[in-house]
Amino acid sequence: MAGIVECIPNFSEGRRHEVIDQILQEIRDVSGVKLLDHSSDASHNRSVVTFIGSPEQVKEAAFRAARKASLLIDMDLHQGEHPRMGATDVIPFIPVSGVSMQECVELTGQLGQRMGDELGIPVYLYEESATRPERKNLANVRKGQYEGLKEAIREAERRPDFGPQELPKAGATAVGARHPLIAYNINLGTSDVNIAKQIAKAIRGSSGGFSSVKALGVMIEESNAAQVTINMCNYKEVPLYRVFEAVKSEAARYGINVTGSEIVGLAPQEALIEAAKFYLRLEGFERRQVLENRIAEQGGRKSAD
Amino acid sequence: MAGIVECIPNFSEGRRHEVIDQILQEIRDVSGVKLLDHSSDASHNRSVVTFIGSPEQVKEAAFRAARKASLLIDMDLHQGEHPRMGATDVIPFIPVSGVSMQECVELTGQLGQRMGDELGIPVYLYEESATRPERKNLANVRKGQYEGLKEAIREAERRPDFGPQELPKAGATAVGARHPLIAYNINLGTSDVNIAKQIAKAIRGSSGGFSSVKALGVMIEESNAAQVTINMCNYKEVPLYRVFEAVKSEAARYGINVTGSEIVGLAPQEALIEAAKFYLRLEGFERRQVLENRIAEQGGRKSAD
Repeated sequence: MAGIVECIPNFSEGRRHEVIDQILQEIRDVSGVKLLDHSSDASHNRSVVTFIGSPEQVKEAAFRAARKASLLIDMDLHQGEHPRMGATDVIPFIPVSGVSMQECVELTGQLGQRMGDELGIPVYLYEESATRPERKNLANVRKGQYEGLKEAIREAERRPDFGPQELPKAGATAVGARHPLIAYNINLGTSDVNIAKQIAKAIRGSSGGFSSVKALGVMIEESNAAQVTINMCNYKEVPLYRVFEAVKSEAARYGINVTGSEIVGLAPQEALIEAAKFYLRLEGFERRQVLENRIAEQGGRKSAD
Repeated sequence: MAGIVECIPNFSEGRRHEVIDQILQEIRDVSGVKLLDHSSDASHNRSVVTFIGSPEQVKEAAFRAARKASLLIDMDLHQGEHPRMGATDVIPFIPVSGVSMQECVELTGQLGQRMGDELGIPVYLYEESATRPERKNLANVRKGQYEGLKEAIREAERRPDFGPQELPKAGATAVGARHPLIAYNINLGTSDVNIAKQIAKAIRGSSGGFSSVKALGVMIEESNAAQVTINMCNYKEVPLYRVFEAVKSEAARYGINVTGSEIVGLAPQEALIEAAKFYLRLEGFERRQVLENRIAEQGGRKSAD
């Protein structure tokens, strides 16, 4: 069985549903690809789509969706709150099972090449696929956004990895392999947002905390409670439970409790099972001891019996 | 997609591999059924087989395996340490996904009927399928074992649910639906087995603890450490973390630590995820937020999009 790759492209259209539908149809039309989720935000004027499939299927679906977006979205007319530089703004590839990060890096290179050659779209490789250290970070790649990049793309350090060194109306696209991201929020028993901000600062990589963790302190109006809102960018390196325990420990210093936590959207099974293993002090537990995983195994045991 | 039922029949043969192989082949021959595991114990002279499939597939495979066992195993010649009353000693059906306990109870009734009618084997329904309260417990059903049941089967209260009221050389079979069982061990930082025995007594249902928990205190020679060895008979009612925390709390009374725990064999994903939810205080987490579960969904989302 071929491995499974997840792809979560972001398109710069969150208002015209007929445009979004046409892009989604391109993805659905690739046999074997499974559309898992999509959501559109009108104020961001942006849509996020999640689909999975074999490496070849995912590469093909991403290409067709990007081609359709380039025909339907004119970046000169685009306005929205979210930073963006292209009709297809960013295409991350995430290894899910039976595929290595390196294979995903190679896939993004092949996709970028084809988008550059056939669609005339400037493509920047980012994250694990980055060809220069400063391009690992998407914010650097997208600096100046579509409008600013019109000029900046001519500078040597902004030269795209593939495609022309000038910006079409479809803008430019960042393509890269990355680890699965888990959106994780931890709720505090306080209405003092400054405590959440202090804790966020303590745990995030940019201020000396866990290097793969991004965090902000925010106020949740509905519950009148402060929250540490977190992006876990590498749950294998820094697991959920470690961040949870760190926040609990920091909160105790202010005499407040962690009232709960939330996973927003999807998380790999492994991320949750690692938490169970940690707290139950489980010894020698293997992935294939999970009944559902054994069932999902591709009949290997059956013939081996 | 049809639901999935797990079946874990026990056969009274753990030495003659050619006999075990023929029984396994009957299971393999049913299309759609997946043999997940099997193990044979020579001193018990018993084999435990695990397979899954749709309700109809599992019922068919269990019938064929029981028929083959009745032809190859003569209980008058059987000796072994484990209590037993038939060539096919016990057939539990366990709902895994998309199948209710009630459906499994109905399946066991259909299987028992067919085994009685076509194979002439006395069948007792046990656990969730039991038709009398005292037959819920397998130990009661199997009382006296094969040898004792030869006479006892003629008593009104030992009358089988299906099949003849006399014992053939294939003996009798207990058939029943039950919850998944998790074999769970908790290791203590002490070599005093009496502490493990005291803790086991505190948590098991038979002495006033959790009603669906069975537990014993034992000594693990290799590690020179005491262990509480547990059968979790209903992990939905009494989750792993609750038993782990109870053992930790009891152990603290003796000034000793829980050094670790082990899951022996398979456990449903839900049992582990519930532990993660408890310790991370996860709010509103749903099964379909697990990436692998979303992927495994039978394309429902795809057409709904």
